[in-house]
Amino acid sequence: MKDPKTYTIDEIGGWERFYRANFLNSLSGFKPLNLIATVDEHGVSNLGLFSNIVHLGADPALIGFINRPREAAPHTLANIERGRFYTINHVHPEILERAHQCSAKYPDGVSEFTSTGLNEEWIEGLPVPYVRESLVRYALELVQVNPIPLNGTFFVIGRVLQAQLDPTLVGADGFIDISRSGSLVSTGLDAYGRVEPLARYKYAKPGHPTIELPWTS
Amino acid sequence: MKDPKTYTIDEIGGWERFYRANFLNSLSGFKPLNLIATVDEHGVSNLGLFSNIVHLGADPALIGFINRPREAAPHTLANIERGRFYTINHVHPEILERAHQCSAKYPDGVSEFTSTGLNEEWIEGLPVPYVRESLVRYALELVQVNPIPLNGTFFVIGRVLQAQLDPTLVGADGFIDISRSGSLVSTGLDAYGRVEPLARYKYAKPGHPTIELPWTS
Repeated sequence: MKDPKTYTIDEIGGWERFYRANFLNSLSGFKPLNLIATVDEHGVSNLGLFSNIVHLGADPALIGFINRPREAAPHTLANIERGRFYTINHVHPEILERAHQCSAKYPDGVSEFTSTGLNEEWIEGLPVPYVRESLVRYALELVQVNPIPLNGTFFVIGRVLQAQLDPTLVGADGFIDISRSGSLVSTGLDAYGRVEPLARYKYAKPGHPTIELPWTS
Repeated sequence: MKDPKTYTIDEIGGWERFYRANFLNSLSGFKPLNLIATVDEHGVSNLGLFSNIVHLGADPALIGFINRPREAAPHTLANIERGRFYTINHVHPEILERAHQCSAKYPDGVSEFTSTGLNEEWIEGLPVPYVRESLVRYALELVQVNPIPLNGTFFVIGRVLQAQLDPTLVGADGFIDISRSGSLVSTGLDAYGRVEPLARYKYAKPGHPTIELPWTS
């Protein structure tokens, strides 16, 4: 790299709060942009915008996400702890403005669905709605909430119960082409990007050259 | 969505191992593609390819990543537990083939740097190297390893010590334009994508319309 600058934690720690948050949220890379849907004890639905989501394992099928401290982001976590079920819904360009609006702090008892014009889609046997407009979405049951006492955040682990998507997105090897569903990423505090396919490679082995695979099969 | 298919966990659970892993790794979205560099007790460096990385908080500056079970991915975790320091290095298109090759299972004592043609960059006072070719990179000190007994994975939390990048990537509000550094994302088991800027929006408030911001400032 030509002329990199070294930013020490002493310098970073002295920055204004939003400047620092923007920098560190970009530094950690592009993350998958999703809406998490839950329901409160009065049956009022809630939608929150989340992007710190990880694949934990395929067998059992576990996916985790980071929930900010309770005082900053109370509803999703409380609803999951009480109701145990939630859906995670990919965001694509056509619903991005409405998804971003879900990051506004609506009061308790107000549904982000009604407020932003996204629609609930209820499935038999599932006590929480999907986002009807989302093109790739899955439902989970809570397995474990891991508090991170260091900063009051929570690492929430769920077991995948089902997924809903257009089956023509799924290749012969199980790969879902989420570039074709327009699934977005986020970076920084408020920036959203679209993903273009670059390459797929065959399983790497020591001493073997890299072999490119077709994006879809 | 027109004609979505519902994939139940009973169906997913019955799939062949790689098919299921591809499906679930795509379902959870695009993730930031990074090389984690560590050093073993004999001073031999190690590079591993990781993409399940989350921003945990800006103050203190904490970033977490998922390490697969010890038997599947032993070196990075063991080196971090022993040495406590590591660097995380963004991957861009020019180093993607070499980065992918780092996912091959090299034997203990063989450095992925030497094997793949990536170069170490040592910084005074830091006991682990950066990847010289990486354009956005940061160093961390281990804070906590959280075992996830459910499936033998680990949630590893580190405190950011410093970051290195081209300062012209950083906007007036602290936003790092990691689309311009070509920072990549991964999906599925072996697929990599490039991110194009789509939009930035002003902090959302209930009852206020969405206001677009320029990508760079």
